[in-house]
Amino acid sequence: MTSFGVLGTGVVGRTLSARLAELGSDVMVGARTADSASLEPFGALGVKTGSFADAVAHADVIINATNGSHTLAALESAGPLAGKTLIDVSNELEPVEGGFPKPLASADDSLGQRIQAAFPDLYVVKSLNTMNCTVMADPSSVPGDHVVFLSGDDADAKDRTREVLALMGWRPEQMIDLGGIDTAAAVEMTMSLWMRVTVARGNDAPRFNWAING
Amino acid sequence: MTSFGVLGTGVVGRTLSARLAELGSDVMVGARTADSASLEPFGALGVKTGSFADAVAHADVIINATNGSHTLAALESAGPLAGKTLIDVSNELEPVEGGFPKPLASADDSLGQRIQAAFPDLYVVKSLNTMNCTVMADPSSVPGDHVVFLSGDDADAKDRTREVLALMGWRPEQMIDLGGIDTAAAVEMTMSLWMRVTVARGNDAPRFNWAING
Repeated sequence: MTSFGVLGTGVVGRTLSARLAELGSDVMVGARTADSASLEPFGALGVKTGSFADAVAHADVIINATNGSHTLAALESAGPLAGKTLIDVSNELEPVEGGFPKPLASADDSLGQRIQAAFPDLYVVKSLNTMNCTVMADPSSVPGDHVVFLSGDDADAKDRTREVLALMGWRPEQMIDLGGIDTAAAVEMTMSLWMRVTVARGNDAPRFNWAING
Repeated sequence: MTSFGVLGTGVVGRTLSARLAELGSDVMVGARTADSASLEPFGALGVKTGSFADAVAHADVIINATNGSHTLAALESAGPLAGKTLIDVSNELEPVEGGFPKPLASADDSLGQRIQAAFPDLYVVKSLNTMNCTVMADPSSVPGDHVVFLSGDDADAKDRTREVLALMGWRPEQMIDLGGIDTAAAVEMTMSLWMRVTVARGNDAPRFNWAING
């Protein structure tokens, strides 16, 4: 059985670790320190808790659910990463006063690529960052063949990511392999449209995800 | 009946002007000069030809199908634009040797916004730039409720754009109004993913478009 280390205690980390624990996986969530108050809710979810380094040491597969602005610092503090698979579900957004958070990705640059460059022995797979975390964790919450993208340089790490996706309910035909980690820029750049569509649909609209018709 | 001025003689300009002419509209396509060799194919399509300025003078609704890198220069040469509606279907892409064209839009900046800023009396509506031109012109070529986005500051110009979309076969439930022209950045930023998905699907795949499931 795959052991998971989920980095980040926000709503994304909570939703994914609760889902994986509910599905019977061995999950540890990591925070900056093992005694962080942010870890308190996780006991009731059947999720172990620790520091970022504890969660990484525990994990076959690491899930990066930290705020994208803090990801590199979190990984720096997380101890040896070589040979592990990291599924990066995060986005790097800059808050804008009175406006929409600004995604920092551009055609040349993405958080996924920066993580891979900073930790060359870690197998980084960008995935799941294009949707709300309730949809990440339970794709049956949205109808039809909506899609999840995968970007990464290592084929085995992508296979492990596919297994994690399948565990949460993603079907093979929903998984779109875009290629190497350089394709993470493409998925991270879609966050502006995701936010605009969220607003256009209104507060009462159900969760959505992108589908590819054709 | 709406008279159209289509700027640009590439495949996008050809496909849209042929479609509008076939649907009975009065269409003039414009090139840099009225005697450009690029205008030759349009006679057989039932489309009038002229310079950019001729096409603008002819038009109630202008469609910008120029290469995004040349759009501002084309509009500068096109004579008085005040009070007209311009549907901007273009993308600004920088060629990359041996790689993917690089979309220049970022969360702060888009071609749609730059056109509107350069010509404040023109009513700019960004639309249709998120798909192949065969899908723009004939949405029935892709199954289901795939979507087209609209971004623009003027409500009347957006209504006129909706009428043009409806003429080509778009149904109201497929049209997503994102808000002002500042939202053009969001749709232009999706071009990287569009290109990656096009490659991932392979050469023999049918045309596709984005849909929103939920």
